[in-house]
Amino acid sequence: MIKTDILIIGAGPTGLFTVFEAGLLKLKCHLIDALPQPGGQLAELYPKKPIYDIPGYPEVKAGELVDNLMEQIKSFQPGFTLGEVAQNIDRQEDDSFIVTTNKGTMHHAKIIAIAGGLGSFEPRKPPIKNLSKFEDLGVQYMIRDPEKFRNKSVVIAGGGDSALDWSIYLADIADEVTLIHRRNEFRGALESVDRVKELKDIGKIKLVTPAEVVDVYGSSNLEGVMVRKNNNPEEDFALAADYFIPLFGLSPKLGPIANWGLEIEKNAIKVDNTLDYQTNIPGIYAIGDVNTYPGKLKLILCGFHEATLMCQSAYQKIYPNKRYVMKYTTVGGVTGFDGSKKEAPKAVVKSID
Amino acid sequence: MIKTDILIIGAGPTGLFTVFEAGLLKLKCHLIDALPQPGGQLAELYPKKPIYDIPGYPEVKAGELVDNLMEQIKSFQPGFTLGEVAQNIDRQEDDSFIVTTNKGTMHHAKIIAIAGGLGSFEPRKPPIKNLSKFEDLGVQYMIRDPEKFRNKSVVIAGGGDSALDWSIYLADIADEVTLIHRRNEFRGALESVDRVKELKDIGKIKLVTPAEVVDVYGSSNLEGVMVRKNNNPEEDFALAADYFIPLFGLSPKLGPIANWGLEIEKNAIKVDNTLDYQTNIPGIYAIGDVNTYPGKLKLILCGFHEATLMCQSAYQKIYPNKRYVMKYTTVGGVTGFDGSKKEAPKAVVKSID
Ligand SMILES: Cc1cc2nc3c(=O)[nH]c(=O)nc-3n(C[C@H](O)[C@H](O)[C@H](O)COP(=O)(O)OP(=O)(O)OC[C@H]3O[C@@H](n4cnc5c(N)ncnc54)[C@H](O)[C@@H]3O)c2cc1C
Ligand SMILES: Cc1cc2nc3c(=O)[nH]c(=O)nc-3n(C[C@H](O)[C@H](O)[C@H](O)COP(=O)(O)OP(=O)(O)OC[C@H]3O[C@@H](n4cnc5c(N)ncnc54)[C@H](O)[C@@H]3O)c2cc1C
Repeated sequence: MIKTDILIIGAGPTGLFTVFEAGLLKLKCHLIDALPQPGGQLAELYPKKPIYDIPGYPEVKAGELVDNLMEQIKSFQPGFTLGEVAQNIDRQEDDSFIVTTNKGTMHHAKIIAIAGGLGSFEPRKPPIKNLSKFEDLGVQYMIRDPEKFRNKSVVIAGGGDSALDWSIYLADIADEVTLIHRRNEFRGALESVDRVKELKDIGKIKLVTPAEVVDVYGSSNLEGVMVRKNNNPEEDFALAADYFIPLFGLSPKLGPIANWGLEIEKNAIKVDNTLDYQTNIPGIYAIGDVNTYPGKLKLILCGFHEATLMCQSAYQKIYPNKRYVMKYTTVGGVTGFDGSKKEAPKAVVKSID
Repeated sequence: MIKTDILIIGAGPTGLFTVFEAGLLKLKCHLIDALPQPGGQLAELYPKKPIYDIPGYPEVKAGELVDNLMEQIKSFQPGFTLGEVAQNIDRQEDDSFIVTTNKGTMHHAKIIAIAGGLGSFEPRKPPIKNLSKFEDLGVQYMIRDPEKFRNKSVVIAGGGDSALDWSIYLADIADEVTLIHRRNEFRGALESVDRVKELKDIGKIKLVTPAEVVDVYGSSNLEGVMVRKNNNPEEDFALAADYFIPLFGLSPKLGPIANWGLEIEKNAIKVDNTLDYQTNIPGIYAIGDVNTYPGKLKLILCGFHEATLMCQSAYQKIYPNKRYVMKYTTVGGVTGFDGSKKEAPKAVVKSID
């Protein structure tokens, strides 16, 4: 059982910044995310694109913003349960909660912060025969640890940025990378498309287009995929493969959160925003894109503010008898749980003679 | 008469970021500030100190954050009335407002955003004989345009960072810089203290300590100051000077804002935070440190959020019949009023053969 002060569901920008604000209050955080990496929509949907409305950043790439947030929270040593979906929540007699994921991992905390954005990102699964039989046995919808493909043969299907970028990345690691797409045209960043062409020309990526995977096979683990070229069953051929990775996008689903007894409105969780973004269940907060209240805007900078106010309220709930006196970071510095301390250089009092 | 869509009182971080959010909505802004430079507390009180809780910035100097905000809003071409205090506000028949400063500058706008922080920064004036007689005639409490001191003789009084830093800065511009302080010890950044000593040793700054200015004189303009050394009237001497700059700190005073008929609580303006941070007077909003509501935190990141929600509401007030559809900056880009356009590189659709 993982134990923490604040359990954060969703490791998007809102969830990540919560770790920082909680850390200033000496509260420990643990995050659960369905994705294999932190960053939420920014990491999954547009990591290389610029954002222009982060205050103080005339321009910052979404992926860089996530990196910076990770750096900012590092000294508060957050725990992560990645690639798992928070499935059930059980309120305990002492008003704390136990949250269990789809893989059975259990987490215990007094405070739950739902920072689930538009929901947990789930892969769009193509309608391929026998696909579900080989899930986790060679069929993967997300890539968590690229090292597992070292010296293996991998088939990737898809025509967008993910398919292009992972083909490029794995070309250096896997023994064989085959990219299959139902059109000749790919849709993505120009440099990615051009790089795939280069790798194809030097034989590091095999390209099969226009084509589709129509079946997968193997005895217990995956052994290969059946490919249909030119939409013509007469051209079907078998392609041996250790792994098949269909990359047809991830789409967020509010999913299990919708069944937790929280008040839902417009596919989001209703909160009381006049104070702390708490839901109708005391001890459960909802911050960032996942919540709704009058005037709500689904923007990154709003999630930061909500996280900050929420942490103050969480502190009061955990320590009802302590009074927290806020100190500016500039004045009080930042003391990490790892013993590190950042602080402004002190003024000197010194005579000149 | 200066005309604008949103008149912002206070050019601290909150006021500055308002320009950006308004700009995305195609609303023009003008800012008034009592200080000679934008940045509010950050620029005036701790420009060289690091802030650690700006989301996405593990560390940023306050002055740099202001520079970045100025860069971010540049293409929305805000107007500035600096070094003037917003004194009176008059509601017009059409529900617009006219705001007049202490120097008589008039501004007309439909929407007023008070981002006045802890109040307008006003200099602490030392009790020196005849001082007020020479205000603006050689006596200055703030430095707006350092060029005006070129080839002049300047006396600076004070023992903190401002006195040290302006002595250093003006040593290169003025003909003669004399720094007077009532102690031998200065209090400031180590490098500033050391630099003043260097400049003193090479004769670019004259230092008189422990000493105080006790009187100022001149026929119409300032001609000099009377200095008392060692707290001993027998050691008084006259020092010719074109300018006398007493730098004993600025302190914020809510000041005129308190008399505008707004609901005040705990020296701050009460707002309705459930929607848009509007005050009890429709069309007047209060954002950032200057407002109060249940759960309020006086933090920079909170001002950013409040500014953003406020602009949406201002838009509805200015264009009651238009419906604004929010576009992410990543998706829609940023189109400046100067004709500039920033946008993400587009994805290509390209075949690989
Ligand atoms: C193309 C695009 C461009 C954008 N541009 C901008 C912009 O310019 N400016 C701006 O401010 N915003 C922009 N946005 C919106 C911005 O990305 C969101 O506001 C932001 O990501 C919200 O952050 P969050 O942390 O609240 O949620 P998310 O980023 O959505 O993160 C939520 C995370 O929670 C996880 N999760 C949810 N439920 C569960 C569960 N039950 N178990 C486990 N994990 C779960 C999800 O997998 C996800 O990773 C853009 C969005 C898109 C798609
Ligand atoms: C030493 C110190 C360290 C700090 N550290 C941090 C930190 O680490 N993190 C953090 O989030 N916050 C910190 N703060 C607080 C932070 O500086 C404030 O929250 C922030 O400045 C508020 O911004 P603002 O734009 O609302 O107001 P301000 O920065 O106060 O700006 C308001 C401006 O309005 C002007 N004004 C007011 N009334 C009038 C008028 N009638 N006419 C003309 N002009 C007027 C003032 O002159 C001023 O320039 C710190 C503050 C101090 C003093």
